[in-house]
Amino acid sequence: MGRGVVNRLMALAAALAVAALPLTARAEDGYRLWLRYAPLEGKELARLESFNPRLASVVRDGMEPSQRVAAGELQVGLNSLLGVTSRKVGQNPGDVVLACDQPRLGDGSFTIKAEHHAIRIAGPGQLSCLYGVFALLRELSLGADPNTIDLAEHPAMPLRMLDHWDDPNGYVLRGYSGRSIFDWWKLPEHLDQRLIDYARADASIGINGAVVNSVNASPLFLTDRYIPKLKRVADAWRPYGIRLYISVRFSAPKEIGGLPTADPLDPAVQAWWKARADALYAAIPDFGGFLVKANSEGEPGPQDYHRSHAEGANALARAVGDRGVVIWRAFVYSAEDKTDRAMQAYNEFVPLDGKFDRNVILQVKNGPIDFQPREPFHPLFGAMPHTRLMFEGQITKEYLGQATHLVYLAPLWKEALDWRTGPDGTVAQVIAPAGMAGVANTGSDRDWSGSHFNQANWYTFGRLAWDPSLSSERIAREWAAQTFSRDPAFLAKVVPMMIASRQAVVDYMTPLGLAHQMATGHHYGPGPWVCDLQRPEWNPCYYARADKDGIGFDRTAKGSNALSQYAPSVAARWSDPRATDPDYLLWFHHVPWDFPMPSGKPLWNELIARYDRGVATVDAMAQTWASLQAYVDPERFQDTADYLRIQGQEARWWRDASIAYWQSVNHLPLPAGVRPPEHTLPYYKSLSFPEAPGQ
Amino acid sequence: MGRGVVNRLMALAAALAVAALPLTARAEDGYRLWLRYAPLEGKELARLESFNPRLASVVRDGMEPSQRVAAGELQVGLNSLLGVTSRKVGQNPGDVVLACDQPRLGDGSFTIKAEHHAIRIAGPGQLSCLYGVFALLRELSLGADPNTIDLAEHPAMPLRMLDHWDDPNGYVLRGYSGRSIFDWWKLPEHLDQRLIDYARADASIGINGAVVNSVNASPLFLTDRYIPKLKRVADAWRPYGIRLYISVRFSAPKEIGGLPTADPLDPAVQAWWKARADALYAAIPDFGGFLVKANSEGEPGPQDYHRSHAEGANALARAVGDRGVVIWRAFVYSAEDKTDRAMQAYNEFVPLDGKFDRNVILQVKNGPIDFQPREPFHPLFGAMPHTRLMFEGQITKEYLGQATHLVYLAPLWKEALDWRTGPDGTVAQVIAPAGMAGVANTGSDRDWSGSHFNQANWYTFGRLAWDPSLSSERIAREWAAQTFSRDPAFLAKVVPMMIASRQAVVDYMTPLGLAHQMATGHHYGPGPWVCDLQRPEWNPCYYARADKDGIGFDRTAKGSNALSQYAPSVAARWSDPRATDPDYLLWFHHVPWDFPMPSGKPLWNELIARYDRGVATVDAMAQTWASLQAYVDPERFQDTADYLRIQGQEARWWRDASIAYWQSVNHLPLPAGVRPPEHTLPYYKSLSFPEAPGQ
Repeated sequence: MGRGVVNRLMALAAALAVAALPLTARAEDGYRLWLRYAPLEGKELARLESFNPRLASVVRDGMEPSQRVAAGELQVGLNSLLGVTSRKVGQNPGDVVLACDQPRLGDGSFTIKAEHHAIRIAGPGQLSCLYGVFALLRELSLGADPNTIDLAEHPAMPLRMLDHWDDPNGYVLRGYSGRSIFDWWKLPEHLDQRLIDYARADASIGINGAVVNSVNASPLFLTDRYIPKLKRVADAWRPYGIRLYISVRFSAPKEIGGLPTADPLDPAVQAWWKARADALYAAIPDFGGFLVKANSEGEPGPQDYHRSHAEGANALARAVGDRGVVIWRAFVYSAEDKTDRAMQAYNEFVPLDGKFDRNVILQVKNGPIDFQPREPFHPLFGAMPHTRLMFEGQITKEYLGQATHLVYLAPLWKEALDWRTGPDGTVAQVIAPAGMAGVANTGSDRDWSGSHFNQANWYTFGRLAWDPSLSSERIAREWAAQTFSRDPAFLAKVVPMMIASRQAVVDYMTPLGLAHQMATGHHYGPGPWVCDLQRPEWNPCYYARADKDGIGFDRTAKGSNALSQYAPSVAARWSDPRATDPDYLLWFHHVPWDFPMPSGKPLWNELIARYDRGVATVDAMAQTWASLQAYVDPERFQDTADYLRIQGQEARWWRDASIAYWQSVNHLPLPAGVRPPEHTLPYYKSLSFPEAPGQ
Repeated sequence: MGRGVVNRLMALAAALAVAALPLTARAEDGYRLWLRYAPLEGKELARLESFNPRLASVVRDGMEPSQRVAAGELQVGLNSLLGVTSRKVGQNPGDVVLACDQPRLGDGSFTIKAEHHAIRIAGPGQLSCLYGVFALLRELSLGADPNTIDLAEHPAMPLRMLDHWDDPNGYVLRGYSGRSIFDWWKLPEHLDQRLIDYARADASIGINGAVVNSVNASPLFLTDRYIPKLKRVADAWRPYGIRLYISVRFSAPKEIGGLPTADPLDPAVQAWWKARADALYAAIPDFGGFLVKANSEGEPGPQDYHRSHAEGANALARAVGDRGVVIWRAFVYSAEDKTDRAMQAYNEFVPLDGKFDRNVILQVKNGPIDFQPREPFHPLFGAMPHTRLMFEGQITKEYLGQATHLVYLAPLWKEALDWRTGPDGTVAQVIAPAGMAGVANTGSDRDWSGSHFNQANWYTFGRLAWDPSLSSERIAREWAAQTFSRDPAFLAKVVPMMIASRQAVVDYMTPLGLAHQMATGHHYGPGPWVCDLQRPEWNPCYYARADKDGIGFDRTAKGSNALSQYAPSVAARWSDPRATDPDYLLWFHHVPWDFPMPSGKPLWNELIARYDRGVATVDAMAQTWASLQAYVDPERFQDTADYLRIQGQEARWWRDASIAYWQSVNHLPLPAGVRPPEHTLPYYKSLSFPEAPGQ
């Protein structure tokens, strides 16, 4: 090696090192997510070096944009996995062929096949190569042999979306990771690089759509002033296969259209929506469509004009036409309806089955209440065979410890996704055939998601929407290996820790089928004593129904009979309290404090044991993490250790405050050996957090 | 060079290169501010290589923390300037001696002296070496010869502070750069690295204090729950010489103290403040003190109990004692006071001169209204010889184009700082002897300040507080050379562009002494027609007083006589409209539309010419910037170009809307050759920005 080369290397090292000074990005600040492509080592490195991959397709100016993105990603990823910054491929290269020259994007189905010392990525459109490249790099990152790789994948559902609950001023509803990633104020003149990086991350996990504003929608997004802003974002996202959608406010024809009504059957209203849709499609030919939260929590809707949800949705759907879709949320519960809140969406929407236009999709939360640590699956799934249903999950952890608690959500979503049942007990409708939407946890924080482990939930949501049959363990392993370390000793500990984390949060917050015990408004911390809010179903006491004799919500035929909304075969599993899985017991049954549990303990003892188990699991997670220091960079190690410390403190707070409150209701002594709450109930009630996110 | 070294170099280059992949920090995203220490080249590099600097002081564990920080900064900075990542210093090194082994911090005065091929940094305390190291690295960055360096500096004033108008929930009042840098929610368990980087940046420009919360103060900061949070921040900042202050709410004794009153003469109230101060000092021995906005814009204060500002301030000052200070803001104007708003602070505070305790400092804005593009200096300066006064400037550009407009503020501040006058016309009191406070423009945005050029105002504020005699040109040159490029061809164009930018914003927003013509609430864009707000002095029409006969606010003896608050020698310069500098004309005088201006034009023509000049200057700035592409990295070049485009559009908007409005008042035709406004006045009035920052 000549002196000149050495000098150039030294200069390169020096130039790059400038970027590692203080006041720069710390080496690992989480910004790179799961796309770090950390250099391979040992056998895997030798195998890839020997394969000597080169991009066989020429990157041309005329190439379709997604193909260019795919080619660039492949080069960057391969170089990084090989531990080099640039390469001159030598003899006997392994050609990687991107065989996606079609002009259309396609659905992203792809095949990756190694043959004769070459890898060919193909499929029905450009997106096939983009998704194929990400899949190839993921497999290589996980240690796959390039000589034998053989994959054929297709998306399980057409819509794989993120819903951003972001306001035009940058506020993110239920956001725990800074401000909105969308800076509408500076658009369209200035597009932040982060929006490109966001699209790339989405594409890497198969997400193909994003609703850019909150379901509590500002009408601004329908104004002429916003169309160039939306267009700039849509143009930037197009090569990554991300279609742009907006949430719309049902009363916008009045607020910005100057009309006296927003009645969906009024021809002027219909013409106004048509004109707005036309303006959007003129600027954004692949505009996705509208998301609507109507007649829900104070938002306007068709019922303001005595029209049904179907009439409202169809009016908008006809404005959009076959150019896109209208996604209508089923998250409704009414101040007038005095029945069980868990039953209201079913009661309201099932009679409308078959009445929605073809391009309307009904978006249904995973459970019948609201993104709790555990809920049974939503009874609408399987109950509307003539309507396209879509699954809504919450990636941002509104009710699950928000930014700081480590809770891996794959097990939660899979509990709903794994049900396969219609109202007659047969497989009438697989859950979420039309798509999945996740309420995003992305924000302006450097780590995108408020914590490094929260990134796992973004990753998981995309992967599950692509393939809901993937196991929680598989996804955790993929994510942790790409994000932190592919060392088997690391994965052997971190994957079980992630899997255990979801039951932990259930245990320390809402064990045994309890729900909605969070403090008012911000949903941070415990508030089981809250019982004085205006609407009954806003109160934690509404859900727990605890008194001196017992606890739980009777949803059997003797109670609200919400069980009747499920198929008989399903309802049968939850109708007898003695046969009900304890995880769902208090959701469906009101039982005495001495109710005998499968463990042999009375309910009161079991309840306390569950809180203790939750706390113990968090302590174990902290110990596990401490044992993994050698595998993780110091920055992300410390961040996570700090948050686990917060989680440990708050798990104890949840346990102690909850037990103190239940004791004030049941007047029972603590079982022998149980640690009493650290403070008195009045202390826990006195805590207030006026600055909590979400206030 | 052996093969092993080469391999290690290659591995280093590869490892570092991973950080340069997409989804990482872009090479230049602005995070490093002016502390980039870009490698020297040519003669300067050869000279520093030949000097061969090495840190002669040993970094020991027992070393005082600031000394350790200084030593680390020196190593990082020298290596970076030399373009290497680490060095083994060879023969004939130039020893850099940090001769600050004292335990105390000191005031930061320092000497840097090169003698016998060595550089010695010394001074009365540890801070001398920290400031000295930053000064040495700055000088070397600017091309100074290490063999002849010889500096002796001391701070012009003891308090050099940033005031953060940040709420506990992360909202930043008048913030245009994201959310607060303080994440109180995760403190004390988790301290973000950004708070360290912030302290380092502050220390590099001599800032030695920060008020961490908004003057519209939440009482939370006085609660027990917040003390550990504040302590964690103060501990992290201590090695950088940054003392922590908080804003306090005057009514806190009622709100969180459980007392029935906040009367400052009530012994229980005094005892409560004493106990709070004691608790803070127990946790933070060098706690700086309290900042108070009282009886101003709805905030509580001593007048609620018929006590004077002095009685209120002294009550808090006695709680703090000689451990710190109470900074009391003079920014008051009353709904009851019907006199000229510009006169009210003077009228209220001058009678209190001499009545404040020794550890009270009165904080006075640069001008008598509110951070306008141009105001005459505040008449309180020079009028309270027996009171310690402090200067308050606004670094965040609330009224000057906010995030996107390029406006360099040194000329604005220096207009106030350069006055040297007492009420009798002599040099009774130099402005701002006690200190300077700047309303910070720092936020969670990657570039810290909302734009790259906004960083210059943070830099400038610190430099001016250290030495107000520095010229605007000198500071611009320092900043631009360290931030972008030290190429003389670059500096020769960018420095004049920065200098011109301030007069440009005056010209296109509020020429000829106009003020406060911004739209209501958010202060974004023009609103000269606004005249219906509840309080007269909230209306732009209050300031311009335009009618068919003329325009301007008569502050002579025939009008409000605000001029009488200035020393006769000063007032004389502004009392005759024909002799008044046109930049102050309409601030002090109401004159007819055909008033003859020094240019020879009638006022109406001159006014339009000023708007046009402002627009033309922005266009010229954009052209200048476009010509500098070769000197700037692509990322920061494009960001700035985007913002200049916004500024150009908005300068036209300001011009056109203003002219359209003045025409509706004076019914005068446009002078020949003048471009008419693009839209009608009703159009400009119809614009609304409900999502503007600051709403």
